[in-house]
Amino acid sequence: MSLALKNVILAEKAGFCFGVKRAVDEALNAKNKFNKKIYTLGPLIHNNDVVNFLIKNDIHPISLDEIDTLEEGDIIIIRSHGVSPKVLELLNTKKLTIIDATCPYVSNIQQKAKKYFELGYNIIIVGDKNHPEVIGINGWCDNKAIISKDGSELNHLPSKVCVLSQTTEKQENWEKVLCSITKMCKEIVAYNTICSATEVRQKSAGELSKKVDVMVVLGGKNSSNTTKLYEICKKNCVETIHAENSNEIPEDLIKSKTINNIGITAGASTPDWIIEEAIDKLKK
Amino acid sequence: MSLALKNVILAEKAGFCFGVKRAVDEALNAKNKFNKKIYTLGPLIHNNDVVNFLIKNDIHPISLDEIDTLEEGDIIIIRSHGVSPKVLELLNTKKLTIIDATCPYVSNIQQKAKKYFELGYNIIIVGDKNHPEVIGINGWCDNKAIISKDGSELNHLPSKVCVLSQTTEKQENWEKVLCSITKMCKEIVAYNTICSATEVRQKSAGELSKKVDVMVVLGGKNSSNTTKLYEICKKNCVETIHAENSNEIPEDLIKSKTINNIGITAGASTPDWIIEEAIDKLKK
Repeated sequence: MSLALKNVILAEKAGFCFGVKRAVDEALNAKNKFNKKIYTLGPLIHNNDVVNFLIKNDIHPISLDEIDTLEEGDIIIIRSHGVSPKVLELLNTKKLTIIDATCPYVSNIQQKAKKYFELGYNIIIVGDKNHPEVIGINGWCDNKAIISKDGSELNHLPSKVCVLSQTTEKQENWEKVLCSITKMCKEIVAYNTICSATEVRQKSAGELSKKVDVMVVLGGKNSSNTTKLYEICKKNCVETIHAENSNEIPEDLIKSKTINNIGITAGASTPDWIIEEAIDKLKK
Repeated sequence: MSLALKNVILAEKAGFCFGVKRAVDEALNAKNKFNKKIYTLGPLIHNNDVVNFLIKNDIHPISLDEIDTLEEGDIIIIRSHGVSPKVLELLNTKKLTIIDATCPYVSNIQQKAKKYFELGYNIIIVGDKNHPEVIGINGWCDNKAIISKDGSELNHLPSKVCVLSQTTEKQENWEKVLCSITKMCKEIVAYNTICSATEVRQKSAGELSKKVDVMVVLGGKNSSNTTKLYEICKKNCVETIHAENSNEIPEDLIKSKTINNIGITAGASTPDWIIEEAIDKLKK
């Protein structure tokens, strides 16, 4: 019987991205500064553990439908995904104190959507139509964007288009959409706005998953970028597992004596403590 | 023995395009107006029959190397392909009378190359690096353009690019180059500047060549757009023939009693008289 420890390798750039870290920090800073109940418009990030940690710190998610329950001067945080100008206007009308934690990379996409829409371009967003970031960006071009997952559903496009992507989109989907558009449009302005953290995270997860026996992807089940990491790893490594935290890592993987090389990656909304717990558990 | 006449079908939009017709008209008008020897910078169009017709009208091609033989006030025509600003400057320095017959669609591409180059974009031209139109466009971005035939030779591109195409490029090549670029560049401005006459000519030739027994493509052997028409037709119809004029149509095709359906198309620099002669000969 071998007594060798498991070899657990963490992918480069796994976990919290700049925009998510900034949003969490701003929420905690706001709590310290105002010392009263703080609201976030929707769960601050797609990670239940972090959301529960924030609730314990009196930072509570609230949906747009419930916004009328807030009072003038109440503090509301816009999460890293950003919102449409209409939502911003509504919060202002309610005279709430707004802390805008929109990721600056997302703000940049919103401004491009606005600019090119006003210049007469038809906006195309490569992304998930139900993702809050995409819904927010679409609000900056009067909700008239064409939203495409991988280009397969596109036909009869207008001639003049501006193409943008969700920050956490897969490069593969970006390329597929652009190739489709090329067949139909005459004038194309395309900004690949997949953020560099996403790019490095996906690339390193892809590479690591080729070398290990099992790949563990840590992150919220409702996290778009975590799901994409899972898809990328699953292509290379059949034994890929999606777990929200260390409790969801299967016991037989932890106890296995035949599996020696385990790779770990984590979505942009997975905090370091969850990654560390998972590594500890697997190494035991 | 069947006595039925051959069915000879001419493709839509075959022959002279707007830019070529305009250049030939300008040359003939100049001859009438000035009533002296006229020069064209290079053969006015890629068609020997037309060039010979022009020479008979005292309109002579001259190369850039021979430009020193001209005298102040001599009349020189810039052909539809256009030239670089450096060449324009040289002609001006020589105090020649310049008639600029650059196709307005080509001028538009030149201006885009200049504008985006000055804005810091790297220019990519989809086209033949030895074609005078491409050489001319490249001159408007300091001869720094990356020129690509079908994208296969591209790697390590700069992040920010502006993509333009030769007016007579194949749509298929445009799409291939764009798909390659999409993998490498972050910011893409792409104008599909294949001219609509080329597009319609290629499309109708492609469709017709699927329906006929033999396809005849009329045009100069050194004509880039004629060669592309030939390639498109050859894919659909093995019996595709490239002929400069009716004299080059094989005798056995003319005399054949089994071939009944013949398609004809012609490059942008093929005048109507050559098309008519070919139809007459095949119908006989």
